[in-house]
Amino acid sequence: MNLPTSIEITEVSPRDGLQNQSSVITTKTKIAFVDALSKTGLQRIEVSSFVNPKWVPQLADAAEVFSGIIRSGNVKYSALVPNEQGWERAMEVGVDEIGLMTSASETFCKRNTNTSIADSIERIKPLVESAKANGVGTRGYVSCVVACPYEGEVDSGHVRSVVKQLLDIGVENISLGETIGVAVPSDIARLYDALEGVLSPEQSILHLHDTRGTALACVLSAMQLGVRRFDASSGGLGGCPYAPGAAGNLATEDLVYFANRMGIDTGVHLAQLISATRIIEESLDSPLKSRVYRALSCQDPSS
Amino acid sequence: MNLPTSIEITEVSPRDGLQNQSSVITTKTKIAFVDALSKTGLQRIEVSSFVNPKWVPQLADAAEVFSGIIRSGNVKYSALVPNEQGWERAMEVGVDEIGLMTSASETFCKRNTNTSIADSIERIKPLVESAKANGVGTRGYVSCVVACPYEGEVDSGHVRSVVKQLLDIGVENISLGETIGVAVPSDIARLYDALEGVLSPEQSILHLHDTRGTALACVLSAMQLGVRRFDASSGGLGGCPYAPGAAGNLATEDLVYFANRMGIDTGVHLAQLISATRIIEESLDSPLKSRVYRALSCQDPSS
Repeated sequence: MNLPTSIEITEVSPRDGLQNQSSVITTKTKIAFVDALSKTGLQRIEVSSFVNPKWVPQLADAAEVFSGIIRSGNVKYSALVPNEQGWERAMEVGVDEIGLMTSASETFCKRNTNTSIADSIERIKPLVESAKANGVGTRGYVSCVVACPYEGEVDSGHVRSVVKQLLDIGVENISLGETIGVAVPSDIARLYDALEGVLSPEQSILHLHDTRGTALACVLSAMQLGVRRFDASSGGLGGCPYAPGAAGNLATEDLVYFANRMGIDTGVHLAQLISATRIIEESLDSPLKSRVYRALSCQDPSS
Repeated sequence: MNLPTSIEITEVSPRDGLQNQSSVITTKTKIAFVDALSKTGLQRIEVSSFVNPKWVPQLADAAEVFSGIIRSGNVKYSALVPNEQGWERAMEVGVDEIGLMTSASETFCKRNTNTSIADSIERIKPLVESAKANGVGTRGYVSCVVACPYEGEVDSGHVRSVVKQLLDIGVENISLGETIGVAVPSDIARLYDALEGVLSPEQSILHLHDTRGTALACVLSAMQLGVRRFDASSGGLGGCPYAPGAAGNLATEDLVYFANRMGIDTGVHLAQLISATRIIEESLDSPLKSRVYRALSCQDPSS
């Protein structure tokens, strides 16, 4: 079936998963959650965001969480950094990688980061330079790579252009965000066709949402094209602010189960991951939506 | 991507979806539900089961439902028939096709139909003859084609043997049931490899569960192998008796959305399907789990 022998997962739940949660989640719980995730075999965890707490109050304790966690030598810990102030706060606690946001959709970029795409690239440029000077990794998030909640379908040419600009200013890793979870495998094929010569499947990171149940089918197609790195969120934590009540991020449990059963190594211990997810679910208003988490929560998770 | 131009869906929710529901669902609601499904463009609907009401009280009103529905000339209406008594009840109301149950797992067969696999085939034989003599179609359900809730992994050789026996006694259509929703695409490839020379992908019907979120990835692989006919259940109705609270059957909405967006014709109008599903959801204890149904229930379903 032309599948890889291993894939690498970046766990984004502590940041992308929690940022829109209205439930009160204590700093202590977040630290316990990240510490539990660190023991699952995950190699990359996005811990929080150094965005202005006015915009994302849920992550106002980013510095405290970073200072409180017990870091594993096998895990890279990253945080979202929107600007110079965020960069300084991130530097104070020491992060391994910073996440930098832009979009393939002008309207989404404006609403999400309050800048045009061009201005977002300008804002990212000095952050990349500072990161490089300090030996910190960089990851550019390009949202709306298939469709936008405001503009509808997004031209793959826009994605290509934005990705090229990020690479040109020195961003090391590119996470392609299918923000609203509409994609099917033919969209994934079209996306990577459009990126040919700019970003190879092997270099890219794919960030999927499971809003319409299509995420693992897209993972399959992406793996067959050569994609080896995926973002995922434990429990499917994240929801979809554009479709209240719908499923959100691709669940790490679903991805790990899927890969395990196809003989693809993720390094992640599924039962330990489910135990970590349970820590955060206890603080939430509603049950998490990961299919595997739900199925195995009522069974022996080793099965 | 080597995809078909169209697929055919058999809607199994009124039977397979409802049979394990503990909620009281009136005959009137069931009739309204089937009538609404008949207007969606679906070509095949499994309406009920003529099993002994003692075993499946939820479907004790099979005859009343069949007598109450308004039949569309474009739809084939089927029912599960376990034995001669069931056949006679089915004949009285007139069905287009009968469903006949067996399994690739000896333990599951014993627990589900109270016979061995060999005896289930013997029980099916005269029903096939009666059906043929009356111009009624036949469909053999083979459960546990990948794994069994009691025995674990199922040898594909057993599936091949059972399918061959069903074809030898004249069963026209074979629905391969992945009963517990563990399958990933490599399982689907292995299954059809094992069936080579006995049942081609084109001839088969694939019946998937989405318990672990893998159903659409399996659909993709199956379509690429040549499978064109799928069972699905509106709203994902069905649950999984072996994993309480987990998702059940592959949701028709998810399959229709997935196919539509890849340019594969199903003949089904998604917004009408969602309206039909809403009729039955109102009688249930808990929200249905179809990802697409949930996502589009809070949006314009044409989007």
